[in-house]
Amino acid sequence: MTAVSQPFAQLVTELAKLPGVGGKTAQRLAFHILAMPDADALAIADAIVSAKRELKYCSVCGNLTDEDPCAVCADPARDQSVYCVVESPRDVLAIERMKEYHGLYHVLHGVIRPMSGIGPEDLNLESLIMRLSRSDAVREVILATNPSVEGEATAMYIAKLIKPAGIKVTRIAHGVPIGGDLEYTDDATLAKAIEGRREL
Amino acid sequence: MTAVSQPFAQLVTELAKLPGVGGKTAQRLAFHILAMPDADALAIADAIVSAKRELKYCSVCGNLTDEDPCAVCADPARDQSVYCVVESPRDVLAIERMKEYHGLYHVLHGVIRPMSGIGPEDLNLESLIMRLSRSDAVREVILATNPSVEGEATAMYIAKLIKPAGIKVTRIAHGVPIGGDLEYTDDATLAKAIEGRREL
Repeated sequence: MTAVSQPFAQLVTELAKLPGVGGKTAQRLAFHILAMPDADALAIADAIVSAKRELKYCSVCGNLTDEDPCAVCADPARDQSVYCVVESPRDVLAIERMKEYHGLYHVLHGVIRPMSGIGPEDLNLESLIMRLSRSDAVREVILATNPSVEGEATAMYIAKLIKPAGIKVTRIAHGVPIGGDLEYTDDATLAKAIEGRREL
Repeated sequence: MTAVSQPFAQLVTELAKLPGVGGKTAQRLAFHILAMPDADALAIADAIVSAKRELKYCSVCGNLTDEDPCAVCADPARDQSVYCVVESPRDVLAIERMKEYHGLYHVLHGVIRPMSGIGPEDLNLESLIMRLSRSDAVREVILATNPSVEGEATAMYIAKLIKPAGIKVTRIAHGVPIGGDLEYTDDATLAKAIEGRREL
């Protein structure tokens, strides 16, 4: 016999499975959900169900979408001559938020990580080669994998793969972030910032 | 046209309604939910729906429950002679967690808060008086409202109401918390600790 009723305990258990949500936070969220109007609480449940049911990966670029091809691939107004290669749909969101990139995307769904047994064949890479070979419009491929060891290695690997086809391959710039401070910038970033200096 | 598909945006919007969850956290949670196995994600949605549908307040003590009367009220092994009066079901959970209280509860669902127009008639107080008048077994009522101005005032109010009936009314102790530090204890708490000193 316990003062905690089963549906409540179940809700706390489920919420605690979310990242960054511990037992106490889960309990606080559960009480908040119970205090919400029914419609608002059910809207959360519905959103989870709908997202799981409707979202899939675009068969063209690999981005998260509810239509296939995705809104970016299907948009004739986007610049069909530039592809931006990223690790995950999160990166697409980050770049779209900036609202300054108007080309297409290609989502790898990971990076080459030999230590975890993830090789090029485990990435969404074959379809990138297919896309590039099918289209004559592509002028440039921007490699926007993260500036980590694996991200750099993956970018190098893809560059080697694509360059022979005569397509311009670029890598996003690394350097001191805007609003950052030289004094607190790590050595590797600072070295990249000097290396990548540009004439004014 | 946007790279963010509607079901995803909806999920982020709904998750951002939770307390302490901002836009970035909501997005991180949404990606996590999408990466979960279907069954796990749907379990979260189900838990929300079940909790909202099945949980109600116990008609006897006002605690959160899926059965009426609640597990505590229905348990003959609990000490029927002691009532612990608390502000909310959260407080019941906190006291149950300690596993040292074996009496019954009464949940007020708030405190007297004249500034917000909440008077004694807005609390689950009438049913406490009814419970006390119906039972001859009650020996003690422990007032465990929070040690805030409103919590104290509410405790005083209830004490005045019950005492004439000849029932022992007690208030939880205030003082320096275990593991706390005298040096960092605020004046009001320290004053309460001195005032409530006990002979050893």
